[in-house]
Amino acid sequence: MSYFDAASSAPLHPVARQALHASLDEGWADPARLYREGRRARLLLDAAREAAAEAVGCRPDELVFTPSGTRAVHTGIAGALAGRHRTGRHLVVSAVEHSSVLHSAQAHRDAGGTVSEVPVLRTGAVSPDAYADALRPDTALACLQSANHEVGTEQPVAAVAEACRAAGVPLLVDAAQSLPWGPVDGGWSLLTGSAHKWGGPAGVGLLVVRKGVRYAPQGPADERESGRSPGFENIPAVVAAAASLRAVRAEAAAESARLRELTDRVRARVPELVPDVEVVGDPVDRLPHLLTFSCLYVDGETLLHELDREGFSVSSGSSCTSSTLTPSHVLRAMGVLSEGNVRVSLPLGTPAEEVDRFLEVLPRAVAAVREKLGAPAGVPAGAAGAGSPAPDVLVVDALGKRCPIPVIELAKVIDDVPPGGTVRVLSDDEAARLDIPAWCEMRGQEYVGEEPVAGGTAYVVRRA
Amino acid sequence: MSYFDAASSAPLHPVARQALHASLDEGWADPARLYREGRRARLLLDAAREAAAEAVGCRPDELVFTPSGTRAVHTGIAGALAGRHRTGRHLVVSAVEHSSVLHSAQAHRDAGGTVSEVPVLRTGAVSPDAYADALRPDTALACLQSANHEVGTEQPVAAVAEACRAAGVPLLVDAAQSLPWGPVDGGWSLLTGSAHKWGGPAGVGLLVVRKGVRYAPQGPADERESGRSPGFENIPAVVAAAASLRAVRAEAAAESARLRELTDRVRARVPELVPDVEVVGDPVDRLPHLLTFSCLYVDGETLLHELDREGFSVSSGSSCTSSTLTPSHVLRAMGVLSEGNVRVSLPLGTPAEEVDRFLEVLPRAVAAVREKLGAPAGVPAGAAGAGSPAPDVLVVDALGKRCPIPVIELAKVIDDVPPGGTVRVLSDDEAARLDIPAWCEMRGQEYVGEEPVAGGTAYVVRRA
Repeated sequence: MSYFDAASSAPLHPVARQALHASLDEGWADPARLYREGRRARLLLDAAREAAAEAVGCRPDELVFTPSGTRAVHTGIAGALAGRHRTGRHLVVSAVEHSSVLHSAQAHRDAGGTVSEVPVLRTGAVSPDAYADALRPDTALACLQSANHEVGTEQPVAAVAEACRAAGVPLLVDAAQSLPWGPVDGGWSLLTGSAHKWGGPAGVGLLVVRKGVRYAPQGPADERESGRSPGFENIPAVVAAAASLRAVRAEAAAESARLRELTDRVRARVPELVPDVEVVGDPVDRLPHLLTFSCLYVDGETLLHELDREGFSVSSGSSCTSSTLTPSHVLRAMGVLSEGNVRVSLPLGTPAEEVDRFLEVLPRAVAAVREKLGAPAGVPAGAAGAGSPAPDVLVVDALGKRCPIPVIELAKVIDDVPPGGTVRVLSDDEAARLDIPAWCEMRGQEYVGEEPVAGGTAYVVRRA
Repeated sequence: MSYFDAASSAPLHPVARQALHASLDEGWADPARLYREGRRARLLLDAAREAAAEAVGCRPDELVFTPSGTRAVHTGIAGALAGRHRTGRHLVVSAVEHSSVLHSAQAHRDAGGTVSEVPVLRTGAVSPDAYADALRPDTALACLQSANHEVGTEQPVAAVAEACRAAGVPLLVDAAQSLPWGPVDGGWSLLTGSAHKWGGPAGVGLLVVRKGVRYAPQGPADERESGRSPGFENIPAVVAAAASLRAVRAEAAAESARLRELTDRVRARVPELVPDVEVVGDPVDRLPHLLTFSCLYVDGETLLHELDREGFSVSSGSSCTSSTLTPSHVLRAMGVLSEGNVRVSLPLGTPAEEVDRFLEVLPRAVAAVREKLGAPAGVPAGAAGAGSPAPDVLVVDALGKRCPIPVIELAKVIDDVPPGGTVRVLSDDEAARLDIPAWCEMRGQEYVGEEPVAGGTAYVVRRA
């Protein structure tokens, strides 16, 4: 039973549990009331705010608690955009932000605003220059995550904050993934976080708005949390969130070094143990506990089930594991393989033995999935065609077939055309657009391009 | 130590505490994930939804959990208005709704919509006919609380729902105060609630949207909770909320009868024990655990402090206890006295002895406050003027003085004018507009009306 999906939600930290239990007796009353139960609740809330502010590196009156990280992002972006609507209605985000940021951007577009998405390098990081180029005189707000939630790549926040400062644009940093490991450097203006990502309870996010940043709360008024987060305060959870953030920070330096060794081990060993794997994300500038790789010819959902049966809980950005049947926007923006995608994010305290057992189990699990799918692993491709004259152009009709079948079919026939000959893969699966070029890069084949065809797209590959 | 403010927030029910503890171990993972921890979390969430839906009287797929009752109201009103924007942009609310409803109405006004506020009778209830008259062809939504949070009066929800049905208008019922006692009758379309009002944890509200009601979620998209409540689900709290609602309902019939006896006792005894008191709210159609009264010549904040020192935690709708220095909009809409206002709302299980002790303490506390303020209680008013000729018109300059001083000054001089003579009270305190007419009604004097004067208003009273 190894839970390797801390980036989705970390198990409750023991300190969070203790603090929650302790404050249930003291923190249930309305902190706006003047009687003793209200005063006690107010004291707890104030103390939690101070502790959280110290961990984040801001003043207590700059920080409000929200019901979740998602709500912190929605609220912060809407308030910052409204506060600067006289400057303009242009919003800048990176292409690999969390969905809460991208959904806020879409809502802004729907309301008549404009949005620029800054592309990322193959590592998943934005280039500070590219980010700076996206800033305009009418830019009201810029958003950049501190580190990516799917591949762990750290973003150049300090450099981007400096570019934003020079342009007079406030920068909102979604720090959900990095906050357990330390405060966010650089001159950011707004910051958001989520307690259940650091082992705090669900139900608590935080939103920091630096003094002097123009900010206009949106939606119906409410006097709680400085008018920035409506609804009755969830004090026991807030106390548990602040206490666990302090506790996690106390362990961060040692635990970060230990987990980085473990994730380095997985990053190095997986390509040795499993053929046709791409490890993605920046190898150095990354979160210590998180790594991601993709496996050719593998159905992500089936692989997750195999690993779950073996006692490993991981997540995936493959299209077949999402309700929308599109691959992760992060992998797409990076231009890396999405099929057979696996994200491993280790909770604090993960024993090395569990990671070693994962490395033992993984090759068998991948091989089992590939065998079920009839993938070409281990079988010399093109063997069936030996002896017959090779056609110059081969068409693979994979219409109606889902990831990873189109890539598997391509791999099976590539050696049936002569070098210089082409294979046209017909597919209506969104993942093919990402995975066929990624396959070409991994296998040293030439990706020519795509053309529309009836019912889908033809992806054209030239044999090297 | 008697906590008599359950209507603000109820102490955590033992079942809520148990359920919370138990589900912290099982409910921290992401219920959208397919691995075992995610599946366990999903099972807990589904079971909680079924239990809550059964208690509310709706289908599980009609109910979503929100981070608070306030958020449920904000979300529900915005979604229902948007879902029917083609019908029109008219919203109907009662004048005594919770601030979350009235703030939503204000946000709707600010966005160009129109709002009708249905007035209430002196009991605090709307008249179904008056409510029906407010419905128009362009009415997109109507809102009515199930029972009032400040005076306990139950609203005629079933009759108003019938009028709404006849007019083709959906009715949203804010059931925050009544949900512990039973489901809301009648053909409502949307319903909201708040767990910490029934002894559940903070951080959980609920929003019900009946099948077939037009509804368009507002704000950035998010796939959780049927797209109606963004952010990571707070499963341990949701489980505790549902479990405690069931537990409270199991006690409701017996406890409701017992608490009604206690509140009946207070309603009857307070006017006998304390001179110059008005008990407000409907004497019969009311919540079992809640009662409210106002005391002439009393500063609400000082009275709350006196009671707190004696170990009683109550709340007040007096202007001097609010940050805005205006009296409660509920008392104002009812046209009843607001000064020296006290709301008593008994938690489940309140011992009769605590209520008896409250009746012992209250008269002393009120007398102490009146003495501090130099109020006329017990002293024959007008004694100082005996012997001198009585002027026909007397002016009391109470400009710059806060509630309850203007009324005290009026009471001191009323006998200094002859029957038929008038007193003009100059005041710039918002509470005077409510409390001077209320004083006249209580003391059998004639309230003539108000006139603007430099720096405030003159309230004119004729001696009977």
